Amino acid sequence: MPLRFEIVAEDKATGARAGLLHTPHGTVETPVFMPVGTAGTVKGMTQAQLEELGVQILLSNTYHLYLRPGHEIIRDLGGLHRFMSWPHPILTDSGGFQVMSLKGLGRVTEDGVWFKSHLDGSSRFLSPERAVEVQCALGADIIMALDECVEYPASREALHRAVKLTERWAGRSKEKLSALSSQLSASEAQVTGQSPITNHQSQIPSPSLFGIVQGGVDKDLRRESVEGLLELDFEGYALGGLSVGEPKQEMYEVVESTGRLLPRGRPHYLMGVGTPEDLVECVARGIDMFDCVMPTRNARNGCVFTSQGKVIIKNAKYAGDDSPLDPACECPVCRRYSRSYVRHLFVAGEMLGAMLATQHNLHFYIDRMRKIRQSLVLGAFAEFHSRARAER
Amino acid sequence: MPLRFEIVAEDKATGARAGLLHTPHGTVETPVFMPVGTAGTVKGMTQAQLEELGVQILLSNTYHLYLRPGHEIIRDLGGLHRFMSWPHPILTDSGGFQVMSLKGLGRVTEDGVWFKSHLDGSSRFLSPERAVEVQCALGADIIMALDECVEYPASREALHRAVKLTERWAGRSKEKLSALSSQLSASEAQVTGQSPITNHQSQIPSPSLFGIVQGGVDKDLRRESVEGLLELDFEGYALGGLSVGEPKQEMYEVVESTGRLLPRGRPHYLMGVGTPEDLVECVARGIDMFDCVMPTRNARNGCVFTSQGKVIIKNAKYAGDDSPLDPACECPVCRRYSRSYVRHLFVAGEMLGAMLATQHNLHFYIDRMRKIRQSLVLGAFAEFHSRARAER
Repeated sequence: MPLRFEIVAEDKATGARAGLLHTPHGTVETPVFMPVGTAGTVKGMTQAQLEELGVQILLSNTYHLYLRPGHEIIRDLGGLHRFMSWPHPILTDSGGFQVMSLKGLGRVTEDGVWFKSHLDGSSRFLSPERAVEVQCALGADIIMALDECVEYPASREALHRAVKLTERWAGRSKEKLSALSSQLSASEAQVTGQSPITNHQSQIPSPSLFGIVQGGVDKDLRRESVEGLLELDFEGYALGGLSVGEPKQEMYEVVESTGRLLPRGRPHYLMGVGTPEDLVECVARGIDMFDCVMPTRNARNGCVFTSQGKVIIKNAKYAGDDSPLDPACECPVCRRYSRSYVRHLFVAGEMLGAMLATQHNLHFYIDRMRKIRQSLVLGAFAEFHSRARAER
Repeated sequence: MPLRFEIVAEDKATGARAGLLHTPHGTVETPVFMPVGTAGTVKGMTQAQLEELGVQILLSNTYHLYLRPGHEIIRDLGGLHRFMSWPHPILTDSGGFQVMSLKGLGRVTEDGVWFKSHLDGSSRFLSPERAVEVQCALGADIIMALDECVEYPASREALHRAVKLTERWAGRSKEKLSALSSQLSASEAQVTGQSPITNHQSQIPSPSLFGIVQGGVDKDLRRESVEGLLELDFEGYALGGLSVGEPKQEMYEVVESTGRLLPRGRPHYLMGVGTPEDLVECVARGIDMFDCVMPTRNARNGCVFTSQGKVIIKNAKYAGDDSPLDPACECPVCRRYSRSYVRHLFVAGEMLGAMLATQHNLHFYIDRMRKIRQSLVLGAFAEFHSRARAER
């Protein structure tokens, strides 16, 4: 099932674009920020609260769900949408990043990657085929091909090896998805007439597969990686292996030069990025999709994003501060609670502190993206961009 | 300011009643269950979620707020309602129960009780006067006189000493509140014309004070305690020192015999009780108000109340269970999520598990009380009561 991506506005000067991404579970307005729901939950948020904030698509982690509760359980319960009661679009990553970021646990071979479960130390294997299988069982709308994500800094040789391996794995992922899709169609034909309740899985259309560009901050390797993936023809293209420690300016340059090589008519996804500044800077470099744990993880540590910069809410100076987290913010938290109260919650170790900070930070990201998109639609992105730069 | 308590329906056979408790922050339908917001937050719930469940009044703990963030801070920020953004009624306990339940830390004298802060071990003193002062600074609608709560089992002598001390403390509490109220009226007269924003405290009316009946499971001592308090004339009467380990039947008997001695026109509050069964059994013994950590604390431990009894949600048998926590429940959690998902959240240690279980359990208590009240208003309490007994 092809993913339909429609560009509705474009900033000619930068190539920034506003689009509509039509998925089986609904349409996503791009550029979009995807909150991270690692284990099938965005930590500290109910699904209703996510909907209230206007979240249109979630990212969930294959690695975590594969280990717990297990993809078969989720498949048997009708897929991840139904399991977590999120009837809107979901993207799952391939698990590759988690496997490799748990240093020393992973061993990469041509076949795939061996790793030890962070839960019980058991030895597990993830191949490109397995990653596709697991993601299909989860029933995500968009799935990612397994890639080799290299640490920063890395030798050109290591980077090049990763580019080529990622390319071969991308090919195998695509083949596996085709095979599964044919099986699925065949079984769908068989079960015609069955109750939709006794056969959830048959209702889940096959997902759209994205390839992941690697190559570190080496522009030639990035080009080589893009070219390899273009030959395979994916429904979307992601930039992986960024925001892993490289200087910000190098990241922006890689995004810009690599972004130009990607087909205009397909969504461009920058994985694991980033700060509120990164959102606008990378939209200005042609990116349509983002995910990052920063708003949610920072929130749990009491670090709150505001129009005036970050606020470390545990700071003693907020003990008597009656103003909202961000006086310029209209989120449900800022409309109701004060800094003094949220500080008290954090100091007292109360769950509600993390809950409120998460809600606020996610609103900050979602709202920021909404404004970026609006400026694109109104043809005022250049102005928005320069104002955003001036405010820093 | 007198608390107006209106009885709107009464079950002649048992003395159970439905009422309206008019407080400065709104009217509470009784019988009522008050969720416990220990540190100015019901753990794992937003205030909006409490409102959605139909929560009409919260209990908050003087002991905890006194130690952190401190009652002066809350007073300076306009009182507890404003601090925690809960514009509805609040009852605060006196702190006595916490002081004495932290065993070995408290030393009771005629003056009051010395205790060590559970936060930093510092030595603190709470007298009846101080407890009233702190609760007035918090600005609760209903405050409790400091009492001596004795452990179960206790000698008759110890119980009798506590009854008499509690009575003398109740008298001192009342005097202190009168003195503060006159001061408050005087200062209100002075500040006339000031902006309401720069002077929150002046807007807070003086609270209604409840006395606490002690005497363990000794009916004669309970009678002596009631008689002492009646002479002092309180706006409401609470039964303290129950549900501390005594057999359930003894508790019910004490509630029944003591309840009969309390003035019909004043609210009767059973502190720290209880199970869903206790609610209906004690309403049947004339109780109007309840508080208990059970629904919220059990929820955080994964113990869920349902129409079929308790469900320990971490149990492996729920891993593939697609049904809601309670198939007979219409709460936001049961309408949206499955046992399998909530179990997964608990097993994975995700905050959302505790959040959803808390929401469900509170709904269970609030809804149970709503049904009890409805049966009283419809004159069908006897039927409700016997059906509730039959279901156990």
